[in-house]
Amino acid sequence: MAASAGTVYEADAEAVVRRITPPLDRARHKGQAGKIAVIGGCREYTGAPYFAAISALKVGADLSHVFCTKDAATVIKSYSPELIVHPILEESYSVRDDQRASVSSKILTEVAKWMERFDCIVVGPGLGRDSFLLDCVSNIMRHAQQANIPTVVDGDGLFLVTNNLSLVQGNPLAILTPNVYEYKRLVQKVLNCDVDEETASEQLIALCQKIGDVTIMQKGKADVISDGKTVTQVSTFGSPRRCGGQGDILSGSVAVFASWARHFVLTNEQPTEKRVNPMTLGCIAGSLLLRKAASHAFEKNKRSTVTSDIIEFLGKSLEDICPAEH
Amino acid sequence: MAASAGTVYEADAEAVVRRITPPLDRARHKGQAGKIAVIGGCREYTGAPYFAAISALKVGADLSHVFCTKDAATVIKSYSPELIVHPILEESYSVRDDQRASVSSKILTEVAKWMERFDCIVVGPGLGRDSFLLDCVSNIMRHAQQANIPTVVDGDGLFLVTNNLSLVQGNPLAILTPNVYEYKRLVQKVLNCDVDEETASEQLIALCQKIGDVTIMQKGKADVISDGKTVTQVSTFGSPRRCGGQGDILSGSVAVFASWARHFVLTNEQPTEKRVNPMTLGCIAGSLLLRKAASHAFEKNKRSTVTSDIIEFLGKSLEDICPAEH
Repeated sequence: MAASAGTVYEADAEAVVRRITPPLDRARHKGQAGKIAVIGGCREYTGAPYFAAISALKVGADLSHVFCTKDAATVIKSYSPELIVHPILEESYSVRDDQRASVSSKILTEVAKWMERFDCIVVGPGLGRDSFLLDCVSNIMRHAQQANIPTVVDGDGLFLVTNNLSLVQGNPLAILTPNVYEYKRLVQKVLNCDVDEETASEQLIALCQKIGDVTIMQKGKADVISDGKTVTQVSTFGSPRRCGGQGDILSGSVAVFASWARHFVLTNEQPTEKRVNPMTLGCIAGSLLLRKAASHAFEKNKRSTVTSDIIEFLGKSLEDICPAEH
Repeated sequence: MAASAGTVYEADAEAVVRRITPPLDRARHKGQAGKIAVIGGCREYTGAPYFAAISALKVGADLSHVFCTKDAATVIKSYSPELIVHPILEESYSVRDDQRASVSSKILTEVAKWMERFDCIVVGPGLGRDSFLLDCVSNIMRHAQQANIPTVVDGDGLFLVTNNLSLVQGNPLAILTPNVYEYKRLVQKVLNCDVDEETASEQLIALCQKIGDVTIMQKGKADVISDGKTVTQVSTFGSPRRCGGQGDILSGSVAVFASWARHFVLTNEQPTEKRVNPMTLGCIAGSLLLRKAASHAFEKNKRSTVTSDIIEFLGKSLEDICPAEH
């Protein structure tokens, strides 16, 4: 266990945001500020992948894609013309048993040809729990790991991963963002015990280590982040409103910040002992930004605050911390 | 007949709203402020279930679901990414006669697996009158009653219930919200007579008692509420505009307030003689909030006021009565 076990540092989250957010340089081309893809959206869920994908754009990514089922695609496209929506996933009900292998392989081929262009993918928002669809997404996750594409796992993606840990094992570019219920299931499955408040940070470190190399952001009153070495938290107060969808804003934002942080770390050499895991930096920045935006939205809308109200404030919140130059 | 028959008390509706609205506590998790489901939405109607479901969110519920037909689902989803829309109901035209039993049973199974998570359901907005669909919804209502889930019945749900009173008989968690026409049909069917203005409140009490245990909010110039014991009214002036859809705002709002009131009554023990029916409290609060919001919307939009304009003011109206803490 790491020397720092038990010690939880409050992140200097504003400094992190300022450090990793790239300058807006006039000489840059489309795509250089980030290309994100969300894997999610099925017959039942369309809001979650939309929230994640549009948040990525609002944080500053240049392109935001969604890979979802046909049913979901029409709806997600209708939410916003800003997104690129690929209607290529399939659920069991639409695929005959004898066609599964070929459909699955076709889906992987179609996603794979895009994969190298992405700076980060988000797996899970509105994914649902259809077994065939989850099998296809497992293939996509394996492909992303081989291609060294950072992968944020949230929502039903966590359901998938909890039941199949090999999908993230040994992947230093994987970020898991469980809420209180999802964290509980993860701890029970991986550590074979219940969540223990007394030894929370040791347990989080043990969880990262046991899964192997991944970064986990345990969402709650404070968001507690570990990569199995250190434990950092962001506890800036956001909003007391708990409307569904805030986790999707977070996963889309973390995807952008993690890809920026990775670029920052790769291009600014630092002594090994000072090197911070870029996935951790991405979590810290995403957490802070959501909290600031939620605070602004709540100030304006109070109890009637919904997720779209929060997304509206992502831009202002980032600008307050880290003004874009003119 | 109860001792109070004939006496109609004006509710101290603002006090009721303040009493039952839960504090926004920072330690709370997603879902704890309420999870609502609307059963409605068919080939013909999509606006009504949307209005009911989005109103629930704007009043302060954390999650709002809609169970509707496939045709309706795509449209309702596209109105707002905030809702979770389940395309699982079927109308006669899409089901072969020999498949009805199996389809009906599958629909019940799918809804039933969600039911326990809901704090209240709303049956009726945009339900339509297809016989097969109404049969399926009857099963859902019976299941909700067995599971002790409060149920607000409005619109075509009242058509269903008026023709099949057993669906709400003896259900103290059922709320019927008839307008003047729906009330007339209900009185004719249950009491075998016409509505009599002279003995209006006695008739309302008799109606509740004859059906058995239900709460009825008779909508009109004043909204008159009874659970068969007392009669209370809310007569705060709202708006002279009578655009369609206001009843849907009301049913969604009442669902949230009724679930809050139930939680309040369950967790704050009071002497039996002082205990007020939480369904009555939910009706009082919902009625007042709609009237306040309609008043604000009319002030701003005058003759062009539509339902969405009123929904926009639900948050401010609640905040004026019962400010959310910071």
